[in-house]
Amino acid sequence: MIIDKLYEAVNKRGNVCVGLDTELGYIPEGFRKQYTDIEEALFQFNKNIIDATYDQAACFKVQIAYYEAYGIKGLLAYKKTLEYIKEVKSIAISDIKRGDISKTAEMYAKGHFEGDFETDFITLNPYMGMDSIEPFVPYMKNKEKGIFVLIRTSNPGSKDFEYIEDKSGKRVYDIVGEKLEVLGKEVMGYCGYSSIGGVVGCTTAEDGIKIRSDFSNTFFLIPGFGAQGGGAEEAKVYLKNGNGGVVNSSRGILLAYKKHEDGEDNFQKYAREEVLKMKKELGRE
Amino acid sequence: MIIDKLYEAVNKRGNVCVGLDTELGYIPEGFRKQYTDIEEALFQFNKNIIDATYDQAACFKVQIAYYEAYGIKGLLAYKKTLEYIKEVKSIAISDIKRGDISKTAEMYAKGHFEGDFETDFITLNPYMGMDSIEPFVPYMKNKEKGIFVLIRTSNPGSKDFEYIEDKSGKRVYDIVGEKLEVLGKEVMGYCGYSSIGGVVGCTTAEDGIKIRSDFSNTFFLIPGFGAQGGGAEEAKVYLKNGNGGVVNSSRGILLAYKKHEDGEDNFQKYAREEVLKMKKELGRE
Repeated sequence: MIIDKLYEAVNKRGNVCVGLDTELGYIPEGFRKQYTDIEEALFQFNKNIIDATYDQAACFKVQIAYYEAYGIKGLLAYKKTLEYIKEVKSIAISDIKRGDISKTAEMYAKGHFEGDFETDFITLNPYMGMDSIEPFVPYMKNKEKGIFVLIRTSNPGSKDFEYIEDKSGKRVYDIVGEKLEVLGKEVMGYCGYSSIGGVVGCTTAEDGIKIRSDFSNTFFLIPGFGAQGGGAEEAKVYLKNGNGGVVNSSRGILLAYKKHEDGEDNFQKYAREEVLKMKKELGRE
Repeated sequence: MIIDKLYEAVNKRGNVCVGLDTELGYIPEGFRKQYTDIEEALFQFNKNIIDATYDQAACFKVQIAYYEAYGIKGLLAYKKTLEYIKEVKSIAISDIKRGDISKTAEMYAKGHFEGDFETDFITLNPYMGMDSIEPFVPYMKNKEKGIFVLIRTSNPGSKDFEYIEDKSGKRVYDIVGEKLEVLGKEVMGYCGYSSIGGVVGCTTAEDGIKIRSDFSNTFFLIPGFGAQGGGAEEAKVYLKNGNGGVVNSSRGILLAYKKHEDGEDNFQKYAREEVLKMKKELGRE
């Protein structure tokens, strides 16, 4: 199971997930100017970030929206980035948040678990129900693939629908998490987690403790560290003995260079330092 | 407002939305063999369907999953298809069901309302909350763009989360629809509908009547006709005086040729006949 590979990566290299939400404006000007092509500029920046961090990070999360924004050229950079993550033997989470049913879900599986955009994990949106999740299960069983499904996000708008309480006081996200735990039993790794992970944002420690204990087979992808306001303490409540989750930071790492006078010429070094700092804050040397 | 353009299209040409969920296996073999390239095969098939139906259809819905499945080549076909829909002066709905917040939502807006994949409407998933919808509003106000947000889908799994009832008996999808109606007031067209449409599946007439009356400013995209089991009677309850919604059929139209012995050589003709038949069933000559 792919989840065992991710679990091992966390054991070896800590909990940091490097978020490659790369837009042209994030790339230091001097570096960007070397490339006439958007595709090459985006990819080469990512390649430098990957080279500087992969031995200290559990995995990489690539947010496809940033590449779709640049059309075909952007998606060529996305493809190359995924291929390069594979080349350095790291793990890729494609943050695509797709969600659709039957035949359409199968086409998404084909699109992201095979071919040009092949990745290890994809993120999914559960709104349409479990029949939008189930078509991915065969890929977990037979092809070493995994998913992370949105459970409880940390944006202010998460209150709008995710927090709606049913008559028994259960929230929508509780019900989502429960159904994922049940389906996850079909794809359990030896590490004690299933290949059906959950996306949970850093918020209050109290909520986090409950979520960790309610969904004990679920490995978490925890976004919102740094730029989005979450801290190490909020993130750590989702871990069990230092594993069971990866914590994503995107702009915090990619733009770490901006805090330094010599940053533009050394963005790789500052990205790496940020990963090391984050790893330490999350409790690992 | 783009919604006025869609409303007018329905007045002129009826309620049919032609779904271009095109996979290679749907293309008649003789036709497909003319093209060595996947991109060209997918696009030329779509072009033929568009040519055969655009004067009788309100709009086209292009399901991006089918193109992502073929990687870069698929997305080149997707791009060309959107360009061709524009060329014949029809309206394109990109069925992408994205849903993400703040900067990421802006990147999706940039990706689908500008550049290579520019379209008229996109579909969105509301799970993360209204801050995943709001970033698209400026594009509606300033760039003649629109959205269709998932409200109540017609797959069996829709019961899992969309139907969860809060303490007052309101369902999740009711709450989604209500919030969309409120936000929609910012982007009302002269036709009486807002540029924030809703996706509602054909199910029971009773549910449909309630949804139509609860969300009176919301124009509906109604999938599930034909292949997914919905019929004209179920779809019609979402219309008001024959407008206020478009009804999508994909396989029903694309594969209409399979019911005829001479179908493979005349897929265009049978697609058109299917559109005309559907238009009539929905109450228009």
